[in-house]
Amino acid sequence: KIDGDRLWDSLMEMAKIGPGVAGGNNRQTLTDEDAEGRALFQSWCEAAGLSMGLDTMGNMFARREGTDPDALPVYVGSHLDTQPTGGKYDGVLGVLGGLEIIRTLNDLGIKTKHPIVVTNWTNEEGTRYAPAMLASGVFAGVHDQQWAYDRVDADGKKFGDELDRIGWKGDEPVGNRKMHAFFELHIEQGPILEAEGKDIGVVTHGQGLRWIECTVTGKESHTGSTPMHMRKNAGRGLARITELVHEIAMKNQPNAVGAIGQANVYPNSRNIIPGKAVFTIDFRSPDLDKLEGMVAELLEKAPALCEEIEVGFASEIVGQFNPPAFDETCVKAVRDAAERLGYSHMDIVSGAGHDACWINDVAPTAMVMCPCVDGLSHNEAEEISKDWATAGADVLMHAVVETAEI
Amino acid sequence: KIDGDRLWDSLMEMAKIGPGVAGGNNRQTLTDEDAEGRALFQSWCEAAGLSMGLDTMGNMFARREGTDPDALPVYVGSHLDTQPTGGKYDGVLGVLGGLEIIRTLNDLGIKTKHPIVVTNWTNEEGTRYAPAMLASGVFAGVHDQQWAYDRVDADGKKFGDELDRIGWKGDEPVGNRKMHAFFELHIEQGPILEAEGKDIGVVTHGQGLRWIECTVTGKESHTGSTPMHMRKNAGRGLARITELVHEIAMKNQPNAVGAIGQANVYPNSRNIIPGKAVFTIDFRSPDLDKLEGMVAELLEKAPALCEEIEVGFASEIVGQFNPPAFDETCVKAVRDAAERLGYSHMDIVSGAGHDACWINDVAPTAMVMCPCVDGLSHNEAEEISKDWATAGADVLMHAVVETAEI
Ligand SMILES: NC(=O)NCCC(=O)O
Ligand SMILES: NC(=O)NCCC(=O)O
Repeated sequence: KIDGDRLWDSLMEMAKIGPGVAGGNNRQTLTDEDAEGRALFQSWCEAAGLSMGLDTMGNMFARREGTDPDALPVYVGSHLDTQPTGGKYDGVLGVLGGLEIIRTLNDLGIKTKHPIVVTNWTNEEGTRYAPAMLASGVFAGVHDQQWAYDRVDADGKKFGDELDRIGWKGDEPVGNRKMHAFFELHIEQGPILEAEGKDIGVVTHGQGLRWIECTVTGKESHTGSTPMHMRKNAGRGLARITELVHEIAMKNQPNAVGAIGQANVYPNSRNIIPGKAVFTIDFRSPDLDKLEGMVAELLEKAPALCEEIEVGFASEIVGQFNPPAFDETCVKAVRDAAERLGYSHMDIVSGAGHDACWINDVAPTAMVMCPCVDGLSHNEAEEISKDWATAGADVLMHAVVETAEI
Repeated sequence: KIDGDRLWDSLMEMAKIGPGVAGGNNRQTLTDEDAEGRALFQSWCEAAGLSMGLDTMGNMFARREGTDPDALPVYVGSHLDTQPTGGKYDGVLGVLGGLEIIRTLNDLGIKTKHPIVVTNWTNEEGTRYAPAMLASGVFAGVHDQQWAYDRVDADGKKFGDELDRIGWKGDEPVGNRKMHAFFELHIEQGPILEAEGKDIGVVTHGQGLRWIECTVTGKESHTGSTPMHMRKNAGRGLARITELVHEIAMKNQPNAVGAIGQANVYPNSRNIIPGKAVFTIDFRSPDLDKLEGMVAELLEKAPALCEEIEVGFASEIVGQFNPPAFDETCVKAVRDAAERLGYSHMDIVSGAGHDACWINDVAPTAMVMCPCVDGLSHNEAEEISKDWATAGADVLMHAVVETAEI
């Protein structure tokens, strides 16, 4: 069994870096706070006797040697970056849960045949730089590295430049690692496990996602002196599409969601009719046909809704992945571990995207989930209990050790 | 007749300060660019032999003495600040048109009985600091000066501190001036004069305005893993109210307008359901009953629209003025001047708010309007012809000189 107090203390230590305004965290990717969080994680890894690898996307790989020099490592990890108003556990639990496995194996003097590598993937959240899971996506060969370097944030700063600036761009070519397996522990970020009273979610599948960045173009003009019939109000395009997205998601119940999280009107002045609105739609479903149907309906109806009010509509997919199905052997290792340890568990579909969804393309992969209070995440009030964290890390350790072989 | 080329050259000179990104201007109030524009105006005033007064709200008063030491001055002016994506004429024409009167009277060696004072009012636009026409409002006793000093911009900077910082806070107590009359020349900012083929708008009335700042409160949560029925999406509140505002304005046609120019969702992340939306509604009508009816309908329906989707609604009036009726004698002076000079003209209602609307409360006031291309304003593409500017300044001069008496 892992040491739940030690794990919790590390979670609380990490949460001191990049504190939010309401008890959570703002440690967005490639900020100074991200650099500080990485340094703390590295110092802990060194204290645990691990050697650190760093690739050209800033992904961190902390390695504990195995007994068989020819055996591929078992990887375990998640991400240390957070949302601008994020929680203390989203991602962090998966990285520090991985570290806790190492500390426990060290304490017990247990050696595994396969090396174990604890990983921190860069820019999982996708807030500062779309898409989410950017660096694990480059690792898995889904995105081109130069394309990733050229992504810009809201201030026009490039991903590649910011990675350089914070000093965490490594020399190791990204994606050059072969994995025996990959395991990721994560909080559920939804309400199901808590509602069902289960300690552990055995993640069998995930939802697919489409992020559609829309630009509605109207005409900036005076709110007072422009007659109603001469207005081309881009803000109304945003309004109509906001409701359309909701309707489309509701029509596809169950197993579909949709919303607009990011929206900006320009020039954003009280007495100027918005001449432009730029916003990103987030559609998800575990059913690929449904997902594609939602996107198709949106792309059919949104231009017409805009045309009616004489504003232009353009769109671009800025993030996408199809519903992943995790590796049956790895999933079984998670389920068996929960069973063996006596934790209540259920199979579950991940509502969120995770680095595991991309790594699943290149290695046998599975995920362990633990409940979170009220299913709340991407909110500073995100909360879990120490018991839930402990159960999750325990199951993670047993699945990893079984796969890495003693 | 005024010198149209000289006026135009000054307009183009001023437009070099705080250039926009698309041919217009970004010279927002109390920025370094505002300070630079003020300094240029001051240097021109000094060259024209005027003495400069500066009050505690940063209002500038450039005075040409009259022949009668007991006569109250005739004031003329407008504002030099612009929208973030503003035009080169909105406000500026009224200030530099006033200066052009002085230059012409100097050239002709004409002395008036009443002094003439050319004024630049601080923060007319209201973008950086709501409400609009802030300093003329304090001058007219509508707002308290300390309240004005405490207004904050989007970065949390106070009006009073920024006025200090740019070095344009004067010693003269605001509002301590008695006026014989006030005249303001302004571009129409609407399409009527151009459509009717008139050179001059004789402004008899203005629209009233209400700015209603709304805050919709939902719950930040994950766009992927939060089930549809558990969402409290503040962005949907913004969407519904955007359309409600439009409907209410359309129901009150003619002589009513409504839109949302400024809107922000929080935390504005692609994968977070907005937990908060803050936006400002702009309702206007020349008919006070209509205006109050629109606000009442909004405040009745918006909370219900929000309740249906389980988000909270709160609102605050952050700007308001009632429809002004300008002084009949001053209005007649403008109409007679246009007639005498042979310019085509028509009576018109101002769609926008102007400093003249507040000064109208404390002095006999009127406005002269000239057309603008396509009625477009609050847009960098705002355009007028040199002939229109010349006609407007000519009429302004004749109305002012008649009122100031030779
Ligand atoms: N787990 C998580 O919140 N990842 C961010 C990507 C997503 O929006 O699903
Ligand atoms: N003239 C002008 O655009 N003034 C700004 C105040 C308003 O929005 O009407």
